[in-house]
Amino acid sequence: MHAKKIAAEKAVEWIQDGMTVGLGTGSTAYWAIQSIAARVKDGLSIRAVASSTSSEDLARELGIPLVPFADVETIDMTIDGADEVDDQLSLIKGGGGALLREKILAASSRRLIIIVDASKRVKQLGRFPLPVEIVPFAANLTLAQIKALGCLPELRLKDGQPFVTDNGNWIADCRFRTIEEPGSLETQLNLIPGVVENGLFVHRASSVIVGYEDGTVQTFTR
Amino acid sequence: MHAKKIAAEKAVEWIQDGMTVGLGTGSTAYWAIQSIAARVKDGLSIRAVASSTSSEDLARELGIPLVPFADVETIDMTIDGADEVDDQLSLIKGGGGALLREKILAASSRRLIIIVDASKRVKQLGRFPLPVEIVPFAANLTLAQIKALGCLPELRLKDGQPFVTDNGNWIADCRFRTIEEPGSLETQLNLIPGVVENGLFVHRASSVIVGYEDGTVQTFTR
Repeated sequence: MHAKKIAAEKAVEWIQDGMTVGLGTGSTAYWAIQSIAARVKDGLSIRAVASSTSSEDLARELGIPLVPFADVETIDMTIDGADEVDDQLSLIKGGGGALLREKILAASSRRLIIIVDASKRVKQLGRFPLPVEIVPFAANLTLAQIKALGCLPELRLKDGQPFVTDNGNWIADCRFRTIEEPGSLETQLNLIPGVVENGLFVHRASSVIVGYEDGTVQTFTR
Repeated sequence: MHAKKIAAEKAVEWIQDGMTVGLGTGSTAYWAIQSIAARVKDGLSIRAVASSTSSEDLARELGIPLVPFADVETIDMTIDGADEVDDQLSLIKGGGGALLREKILAASSRRLIIIVDASKRVKQLGRFPLPVEIVPFAANLTLAQIKALGCLPELRLKDGQPFVTDNGNWIADCRFRTIEEPGSLETQLNLIPGVVENGLFVHRASSVIVGYEDGTVQTFTR
């Protein structure tokens, strides 16, 4: 908890007056939102967009000024967590199920700052099952196409029924074990009709801030 | 009308007993479904899956045996129309708004037979605005990313509101005028988070059957 919090605080230091800020989703992004709210109380002037209704609700409750996406052309900085980070700053995200909205924000952000604790750093991505968002229509055909790429896809369930994303889709958690070429896999997955998006973020993060339990942080920048 | 009908009849001749057949959507696929129904009445034994509720309803009404997708692993042959076809048998589809489901069927079909009248043949794709299916969330950011690929994207409307697909998404009709490299554009579009699928079908059609008003047909096969 402490490690996530100090990584979040470090990232939030980089926010400047006048910025449009993208708010991530999940337990690490939670600390970033808390820390942004503290700076807003101290007079920081920003506007924010959120990648999920839960982050939006939290930000509103804490007094962070929110704007609708229709009012935004580019986002100056998005701060978000990740499930795995490799040495090239490629990521697996989506354990929380919000990968599509997080990726839409990332694609329109000048800078994407990823905050993690040390447990998320890996030599090679793939130990964490890759979340892939698929349309429910003919899902068994889409799952067969994903499986042909060399993984074991498992439909994410909630109370015995398929877990439904904010966009009305389903999530397949895909066990690849090791992902040799994240960029190539990202493309192959997105070319499967029925795949809406996948949790690989390749060449998208500008910086990764790693927090340690001893209170130190380490910053990696591309 | 005659040209579409004879192209459809030619395609339906290729269906054999025992096949699982994918039914397309639109005015040309309509004739294929009619022709399949006639062969089923004459004793042809097949089972079918449909790419839209309208095609499903028509097939049911005409007595074509339908099966749920969950019962299907691969489709032997899908017969569908197209909005543009070039000499490499690359296609633009999606004028009718069913591109995602049609592409899911195509991806799981051993053979995809495209039936068109002569007006759909072009030297180069792109005169027909390319339909791109996008998620409604932060659609303005996604449209800006699409525009950066060199087109004028226009949100498809119905009664003054965004047209909603069978999958709950929106359609952007993208005026590229000429598409130099369809395969590369297909990939670039699908790598934009927020793009669910696009109407480019590259290296997917096995055969294209062109019908002419004089009653002749021409068959192109890859």
